[in-house]
Amino acid sequence: MKVGGKNFRSIWLEDYGRKVRVIDQTRLPFQFEVKTLSTSADVAIAISDMIVRGAPLIGATAACGLLLATAENASDDYLSESAQKLLASRPTAVNLRWALDRVLPRLLETSLEDRFERARIEAVAICNEDIKTNSQIGDHGLHILQDLHKAKNGDNQINILTHCNAGWLATVDWGTALAPVFKAHDAGLPVHVWVDETRPRNQGASLTAWELLAHGVPHTLIADNAGGHLMQHGRVDICIVGSDRTSRGGDVCNKIGTYLKALAAYDTDVPFFAALPSSTIDWSCLDGTKDIPIEEREADEVLYISGATSTGEPIRVRLAPEGTQSVNPAFDVTPRRLVSGIITERGVCKASEQGLVELYPEQLVRSR
Amino acid sequence: MKVGGKNFRSIWLEDYGRKVRVIDQTRLPFQFEVKTLSTSADVAIAISDMIVRGAPLIGATAACGLLLATAENASDDYLSESAQKLLASRPTAVNLRWALDRVLPRLLETSLEDRFERARIEAVAICNEDIKTNSQIGDHGLHILQDLHKAKNGDNQINILTHCNAGWLATVDWGTALAPVFKAHDAGLPVHVWVDETRPRNQGASLTAWELLAHGVPHTLIADNAGGHLMQHGRVDICIVGSDRTSRGGDVCNKIGTYLKALAAYDTDVPFFAALPSSTIDWSCLDGTKDIPIEEREADEVLYISGATSTGEPIRVRLAPEGTQSVNPAFDVTPRRLVSGIITERGVCKASEQGLVELYPEQLVRSR
Repeated sequence: MKVGGKNFRSIWLEDYGRKVRVIDQTRLPFQFEVKTLSTSADVAIAISDMIVRGAPLIGATAACGLLLATAENASDDYLSESAQKLLASRPTAVNLRWALDRVLPRLLETSLEDRFERARIEAVAICNEDIKTNSQIGDHGLHILQDLHKAKNGDNQINILTHCNAGWLATVDWGTALAPVFKAHDAGLPVHVWVDETRPRNQGASLTAWELLAHGVPHTLIADNAGGHLMQHGRVDICIVGSDRTSRGGDVCNKIGTYLKALAAYDTDVPFFAALPSSTIDWSCLDGTKDIPIEEREADEVLYISGATSTGEPIRVRLAPEGTQSVNPAFDVTPRRLVSGIITERGVCKASEQGLVELYPEQLVRSR
Repeated sequence: MKVGGKNFRSIWLEDYGRKVRVIDQTRLPFQFEVKTLSTSADVAIAISDMIVRGAPLIGATAACGLLLATAENASDDYLSESAQKLLASRPTAVNLRWALDRVLPRLLETSLEDRFERARIEAVAICNEDIKTNSQIGDHGLHILQDLHKAKNGDNQINILTHCNAGWLATVDWGTALAPVFKAHDAGLPVHVWVDETRPRNQGASLTAWELLAHGVPHTLIADNAGGHLMQHGRVDICIVGSDRTSRGGDVCNKIGTYLKALAAYDTDVPFFAALPSSTIDWSCLDGTKDIPIEEREADEVLYISGATSTGEPIRVRLAPEGTQSVNPAFDVTPRRLVSGIITERGVCKASEQGLVELYPEQLVRSR
């Protein structure tokens, strides 16, 4: 997507794969800075310090980390050790393990002199596959927005509410929930996005708002509390959110607060969609509300917040009195009954086991 | 309620009514400072600068402002002019007008030499009536919490979720939504409060958390996004919120985000109560969702936030990129169908016209 009129991805290779360039997401939204990662150790730090974040992007970054490791020392031992270090950089990120599990064995089966080239091909493939998947999600979602546009004869603007950041910064390009928005905007549809600020980590205010601003998509930042009221008053036409994990039954685990927006959408007849690559579907889990464990993150994310001073300096400030405790569940699960549909790279389906298995018939045989 | 083991009100008179003392709420939660207001002009500034806030407290403060004006110059002209200045200090506050409309005519009908004494009696009466009303709300709400406690044989703790600040700082003492909580805590019931931080103005994180901490009531601060998840998982026994305006039909207009919590409570079978003095009931409005106008406040409240630096200095920081716009509706309306009951100074009733009119039969004759 565009930044200052120029096309960017969140990660790319330079020097024929001897350097990795990423956008430093810890500096956003106040500074746009491209960082060069020259060693596999740099990559591990970029992941652990959340210079890159978002499940798909973390996977792609890990693959690039193995590429740099291959340039350093292509031996079995060094590559295995590097993979271990990369894995430890964000232990709970499933895409991190997925990418390493895919690339490392392929390198080890390759002759020493061909390993760098193989690693380069794999890293490029993982990045390109991610872009293709998200672009397909965008195309399928675009049809929904085009239909909404046709249905809204009088008022042209299509108002889309999103929660957290499921944009291109969380992936290599396009994003998931935002892919249909970018496609629609680029196709000339008059879209406008209500951006939930997404406390406590404020990914909406800092990343989604920045992405949309940089690409030129009209948007308005709102407190997480405001979405229900806007829906009650006809100011939201559709909600589109991402998903960190989706049950086989169609329950959507996503950033904390998603469930509240789904309830409001259901109560006010606003369509509520989750846009996600099939890689986030947990085919072994039927009831997401019951069976998906929810990470509780540190209290300080609620008690403190980061922003910029009047001179643009980043600063972390305390919000609550000393002595007040906090609990910080990072995700919640939206039951399938509240989800109008799921947008995947293969198309749109009902949020149900039947709907998902019809799109992914190869999962029919899989035991629950 | 207590601060550091000592009983406080949010406003009180000293020097036989020649000085007004208030807690400076702009300094909370990081500094506890009592401010002396010596002139009616001081009082107007305290209201406009939000040193005091909360509808009932604003009304009481205005009455104290007229008292100080009487000490300055008890003439008709001066008192009328002072009342005008006080009224202009927060033009949308209904309790401000209510208090002035009550006190000023009584002063003007009193002989010049008796006006100060009359003003003192009126100011004290308004404060004491507020305390009595809230104490009664607390007593009625306490019964609900006692019943919950009995019903929870296994797990003793009663988990109450509240939104915004409807505590004693918003009133002269006790608060509305928090009155039952303080009564229960003082009666030895093991209550624990989930405090919504309440973006964008963070009244939960800064005022409710501070009040509960100061009085010694166990509580946990949460992001506004977290409440639905906690309810899904049985970690909330009851929601109690305040109300800024309540329709004759039982719809509850309260701080933005209340509607989302009510939806989650309804979806998860958690009782959802609004605690309010009958003075907030708008007997002329039947359908609150349709007919209560919602104030949109300035965007900067969303784009910026105030907190304390590591050295305790208050500071305002920017959260979103420059160029991002915001919309900031301050309240929303929770439809009566989501409200389990309304706790008033006369008792608890269904959230319906019938329920409210049974408690307030004198309103039966009033035309809609």
